[in-house]
Amino acid sequence: MTHKRSYAIIGTGAVGGLYGARLQQAGHDAHFLVHGDIDHVRAHGLRVESPWGDVALPCVHAYGQAEDLPPCDVVCVCLKTTHNHLLPRLLPAALRPGGALVLMQNGLGAEEEAAQWFPEARIAGAMCFLCSNKVGPGHIRHVDYGRILFGAYSPDMDETLRGIAGDFEAAGVPVQIAPSLGEARWRKLFWNIPYNGLSVVLQSETDEIMGHPATRELSEALMREVLKGARACGHDIEDGFVAEILDFTEKMKPYRTSMMLDFLARRPLEIEYIYERPLEAARRPGAVLPRIDALRAQLRFLDDRNRRESADSNPRE
Amino acid sequence: MTHKRSYAIIGTGAVGGLYGARLQQAGHDAHFLVHGDIDHVRAHGLRVESPWGDVALPCVHAYGQAEDLPPCDVVCVCLKTTHNHLLPRLLPAALRPGGALVLMQNGLGAEEEAAQWFPEARIAGAMCFLCSNKVGPGHIRHVDYGRILFGAYSPDMDETLRGIAGDFEAAGVPVQIAPSLGEARWRKLFWNIPYNGLSVVLQSETDEIMGHPATRELSEALMREVLKGARACGHDIEDGFVAEILDFTEKMKPYRTSMMLDFLARRPLEIEYIYERPLEAARRPGAVLPRIDALRAQLRFLDDRNRRESADSNPRE
Repeated sequence: MTHKRSYAIIGTGAVGGLYGARLQQAGHDAHFLVHGDIDHVRAHGLRVESPWGDVALPCVHAYGQAEDLPPCDVVCVCLKTTHNHLLPRLLPAALRPGGALVLMQNGLGAEEEAAQWFPEARIAGAMCFLCSNKVGPGHIRHVDYGRILFGAYSPDMDETLRGIAGDFEAAGVPVQIAPSLGEARWRKLFWNIPYNGLSVVLQSETDEIMGHPATRELSEALMREVLKGARACGHDIEDGFVAEILDFTEKMKPYRTSMMLDFLARRPLEIEYIYERPLEAARRPGAVLPRIDALRAQLRFLDDRNRRESADSNPRE
Repeated sequence: MTHKRSYAIIGTGAVGGLYGARLQQAGHDAHFLVHGDIDHVRAHGLRVESPWGDVALPCVHAYGQAEDLPPCDVVCVCLKTTHNHLLPRLLPAALRPGGALVLMQNGLGAEEEAAQWFPEARIAGAMCFLCSNKVGPGHIRHVDYGRILFGAYSPDMDETLRGIAGDFEAAGVPVQIAPSLGEARWRKLFWNIPYNGLSVVLQSETDEIMGHPATRELSEALMREVLKGARACGHDIEDGFVAEILDFTEKMKPYRTSMMLDFLARRPLEIEYIYERPLEAARRPGAVLPRIDALRAQLRFLDDRNRRESADSNPRE
């Protein structure tokens, strides 16, 4: 029997809990960095409810301190991007020289940044298309979807990434590998930019946004600006993709976006990676995206007020 | 003693109540169309608290039905523009052929529309720069400002308008006459478009909007789009006007916009005249104003939801 890759799961929430549990169940060594519920996870392990089949893991390798993680073959970052400034402190123990680093996050620019911090790592990005929530200590509820689209960032990453994607696939996760990580990240923004932002500003779910002609049109106008940004950055995305995403969203069950959930829980919003970095990337070759910029400004205002009003501060849950 | 002009005041709220009471006190016949508080106004008259001096008028000519108004020399429309579709029914009794009609309202396009309904009227617009609220039945509280900027719409209106402005001035109201009504209406939009809309979407007062760098910048970007629209419509407004309005707003006391008050009271918002008609006017000569359009869409969504959730429906107060 060949050696199975070991995995460090940085952030054991809706994403890390779901995928990490499946990797462990498939026979991989998995090491979980756990924040708020470390005592519970140490004592009782992880529990994942999922349409793919429930998983109960009474015993997992759980760590409260990043320094205690062992070096692993693959480090999966499953934190919100609002914590990425912590990565220089969270990754060194788990990420051995030449090890693989997979940023399973939304938005743009995390790979570039990680490459500066960890120049010897082989880096990939992963877009997770899923509806999943952490509903209690050590308890994940995966509701729908779950596909992962991987994309290589480092030039020498292709073969390793195929191996990693194969591990996820063998663990029961639908996977694909994108020919261009940049293009794939921009494609995901077609959904994230309009719906995350509007759901917070309008305090509404996707069906309401799509059900009103004014905000349906605004969603489309925002997507056309994403298209303009993507093309300015050299990604030749087809016109019809806008209609595809509108159509997909219209057919979705009413959905409360992750940014709206963050807002309601008074957690910081992923404005930097979902809005500011794409705006900056588009601006460099000269593309101005005014509606997206207006939405960004509104979110910055609401996020700051929301957290000023926040009584507690729980930086990682 | 010369004949003093008689005035019909269509809408006895924060605007009509304040100015109508001063005109009556200055010796003009004033006839008030009153909606919700007609019984109270008939029995007790009007009471205005004002930095210009309080006014108590125990006896006023108050009408619950527009048909009962007598023909007057001047008809002042002091309704929110959300009720302008009622004007063809509200004005004919008071507006005699060749009479003067003054639209004391926000936004763009009310004069053009009134000219189609009342082709024989001599029409003017008036921009009221004031902070005033109706605080109870027959009770107006004028807090600050109060200047009126009149502008002729009909070509044969100049001399009559000077007379009307003179009446207001003699009644203690600071007045000016604008050389161009169109330009004056666009200038007022520099304030109304950013602050009315953002105050509703962000549920915030002007000082908060100006106090956060992101929304301060957004306010400025919205004003630059107003400038673009004004210029596309042929009004040569100077660049420095943006800085002037920003500066003025920064120095204002914290202010809750009229649109935010309407929203909180679940009254319909003046989206058509403050946003949609300017957008349409700018689009005709080819100017696209994307941030304003995005704000308009958000307001349409919020307004519709707000009034769907509204228990009562009180169309004119």
